[in-house]
Amino acid sequence: MNDAAKLEQTITDIKPAQQRAIQEARQLQSRLTKPAGSLGALEDLSARLAGLAGTCPPPLPEPAAVAVFAGDHGVCARGVTPWPSEVTVQMIANFLAGGAVVNAFSRQMGARVVIVDVGVAATLEPADGLILSKIRPGTADLGSGPAMTRDEAVAALVAGIDVARRLVSEGARVLITGDMGIGNTTPSAALIAAFAGVDPAAAVGRGGGADDAMVAAKIAAVDAAVSRHRLEVERDPIAVLAGVGGLEHAAIAGYLLGAAALRVPVILDGVIAVSAALAAQAIAPDSVAAMVAGHRSAEPGATVALAALGLEPLIDLGLRLGEGTGAVLALPLVASAVRVLREVATFDSAGVSEQEG
Amino acid sequence: MNDAAKLEQTITDIKPAQQRAIQEARQLQSRLTKPAGSLGALEDLSARLAGLAGTCPPPLPEPAAVAVFAGDHGVCARGVTPWPSEVTVQMIANFLAGGAVVNAFSRQMGARVVIVDVGVAATLEPADGLILSKIRPGTADLGSGPAMTRDEAVAALVAGIDVARRLVSEGARVLITGDMGIGNTTPSAALIAAFAGVDPAAAVGRGGGADDAMVAAKIAAVDAAVSRHRLEVERDPIAVLAGVGGLEHAAIAGYLLGAAALRVPVILDGVIAVSAALAAQAIAPDSVAAMVAGHRSAEPGATVALAALGLEPLIDLGLRLGEGTGAVLALPLVASAVRVLREVATFDSAGVSEQEG
Repeated sequence: MNDAAKLEQTITDIKPAQQRAIQEARQLQSRLTKPAGSLGALEDLSARLAGLAGTCPPPLPEPAAVAVFAGDHGVCARGVTPWPSEVTVQMIANFLAGGAVVNAFSRQMGARVVIVDVGVAATLEPADGLILSKIRPGTADLGSGPAMTRDEAVAALVAGIDVARRLVSEGARVLITGDMGIGNTTPSAALIAAFAGVDPAAAVGRGGGADDAMVAAKIAAVDAAVSRHRLEVERDPIAVLAGVGGLEHAAIAGYLLGAAALRVPVILDGVIAVSAALAAQAIAPDSVAAMVAGHRSAEPGATVALAALGLEPLIDLGLRLGEGTGAVLALPLVASAVRVLREVATFDSAGVSEQEG
Repeated sequence: MNDAAKLEQTITDIKPAQQRAIQEARQLQSRLTKPAGSLGALEDLSARLAGLAGTCPPPLPEPAAVAVFAGDHGVCARGVTPWPSEVTVQMIANFLAGGAVVNAFSRQMGARVVIVDVGVAATLEPADGLILSKIRPGTADLGSGPAMTRDEAVAALVAGIDVARRLVSEGARVLITGDMGIGNTTPSAALIAAFAGVDPAAAVGRGGGADDAMVAAKIAAVDAAVSRHRLEVERDPIAVLAGVGGLEHAAIAGYLLGAAALRVPVILDGVIAVSAALAAQAIAPDSVAAMVAGHRSAEPGATVALAALGLEPLIDLGLRLGEGTGAVLALPLVASAVRVLREVATFDSAGVSEQEG
C-alpha cells in the first residue's frame, strides 16, 4: 500500500466514540461508594475512555509507550530561538543514554521510550530505542515558502501511523506524544494560528527562552506562513500541515490518527502535540475521541489549541519543557480514572448507605 | 511524657527550611539538560523538599503511607449533610476491605493505607490496618458549644503526632493525609473561617452533596462557632481547634506537626486537610515547610485555606471526595520533582550545548 492509501485507510478506520459505553460508565460512577460527581474531571475521563474502547470498564492503559518525534527546522535561520540546532542531535544522544527528563519520568511511571528521527538535519547511527524514519533532513524555512512538500507531509503522517501501530503491536495500551526539535515552537504557533484561526501574536510564545527580538521574528515568520495558506484550512489540511508545520508535527499528527484508528488512548504533551492534534482533528475529526490532554503548557498557543480541540488538560503546572514530559506526568491520572471503574466497590456490594432524600 | 509535654516537644523540634539546600537545588536545576525554569512548579517543589530535608538532592519520597483519620460530628444533628452518620463506620469497613477509591489509588501508587479511629461514634473491632486511638465517640455540636475540650484536642493532636512517628519508624518517607467523617466539611469551614478570617459563607460549600437548606444550616452553625472564638485565633489556636474543629481535624493537625518535626514531607488532601493545616500553621508556623498541597478541592473553603497557607496545589481536577484521594493522586508528581534532581544529566555531563547569548 502506498503512503496516500495507507493514510486514507487509517482515516476510514477512525470511528466516533461509542455512546452506550459512555452511558454505562456514567451509570457505574453513580453506583460507586463516593458522592456522585466527586471525582470531577476523572469521571468524565473514565467515560471518554469507555467510549473510545467501546466497553465499560475500559481496559487499563498499561503498558505505556512514549514516542519522541525529532526534527529540525529551517526557520531557525531567522533567529527564532536562543538554542543552536545541534542541540536536537545532542538531546537525542541524551535520550538514548537515559539522561533527559523524559527518561527520568518514564522510568518512574514504567513507560517505554522510543526516539523517532523523522527530520533531524544530521545522519544518526542506528541505536537501541531509535527508529530511523527520516523524511528529509530538516524543513525548509516556513517564513519564505512551504516547510515541506505535500508528499513529504504524507510520508511523515504515515511514519507516525506506523510508529503507533508498532508500539501497540509490541504491547502498548496507551501512547504518549513526545517531541524534540530546536525551533519547533514556531511551526507549532503557525499550525495553531492557521487551524484555530487566531492572530500569530496570540499563538506565539517564548518557547525554550526566546527574547523579545526572537519573539518578533517568530511572529513575522508565522504571519508570512499562515498568510500563504489561509484558504486551505478547511478544504486541504494536509497542505497547511506541509506549508507551515514541521516533520515531527506531521508525524505526531499521524501517530494520533494511528492511535485513534486502533482505539488506543493517546496522551498529548505540550504545544507541539496540541498543534499537531489540530491538524489531526482537521484531517479526521473523530480522532479527538482518542486524545487525552496531558497538561497545559505555559506556551500561550497551547491554551488556544486545547480550546479548539475541546479538551481540558489534567495537569497545569507551568511546564514548557516538551520531550513528552508533561504527558508522562499525566499517565498515572489516566490510569487512576480507569482503575476507579474497575476496582471501587458499589454501595450495594460494600453495604454502604446511600445519600438520603 | 504527658500529652501537653509531647506536643510542646514536637513544636520545639520543628525548624525552618534550610536555605542553603534550597539554593543548591535552584543551582542544580539550572545546570540540568532543559531550558531554565521549564519544569515550572515542579522546580519550586524540588527546592522546597531540599530545604525540608536540609540536603540536595532530597531523599526520594518513597515509600508512602496514607493515614485516614476518622471521626463523627455532633453538628450533623443540625441537618448539614444528606448522608447518615452510620456511613462513617460503613466506609471504614469499605477501606479495610480495600474497596474505596483511596484504596484503589493507593494500590496503584504503591502507598500503604492505615485507618485511625480518633472519634468515631461507634466501637470498632480491632483489624489489620486499623489504629484504635479514639479520644471520644464523636464531637459535641459545634453550633451550640465547644466541639471538644481543650484536653481532648491536645490528645487528638498527640494521636496524630504518634501516627506520623509510627509510620515513619515503619519506613514511610512521605506521609499523606486522609479523612473520613460524615459532616466533617462543617468543622473544616469553621476552622477556615476562624483562622483565615473570612466570612462563614466564603468558607462553606456543598461537601458531599448538601442542598440549599443544608448549606444555610452549615453557615449558621459555622457562624455561631466562630463567633465564640474570635479573640483566641492569635493567642490560643488550640482553643479554637477544640471549639470549632473535629477530632480528625485535630489529629491531622498533629500528624502535620509530627511530619514537620521529623522533616518528612506530608501531602495534604482536600478541605479537611487544609483546614487542619491552618491550625498546625497557627500552632507552629514553620510546619508549613513540610506541607505539599496535593490538590485544590472543589470546596470553596479549600482555596481560601491554600491562599492562607501560601501553597499552590499540584492537581486541580474538581475533586471533592476526601479520604486522601486527591493527595494520593499527587504522590507521583512529588516523586517526579525529586527524581529530576537525582537522575537528570547536566549540560556538562551530557555534552549538550547551552543556550546562546
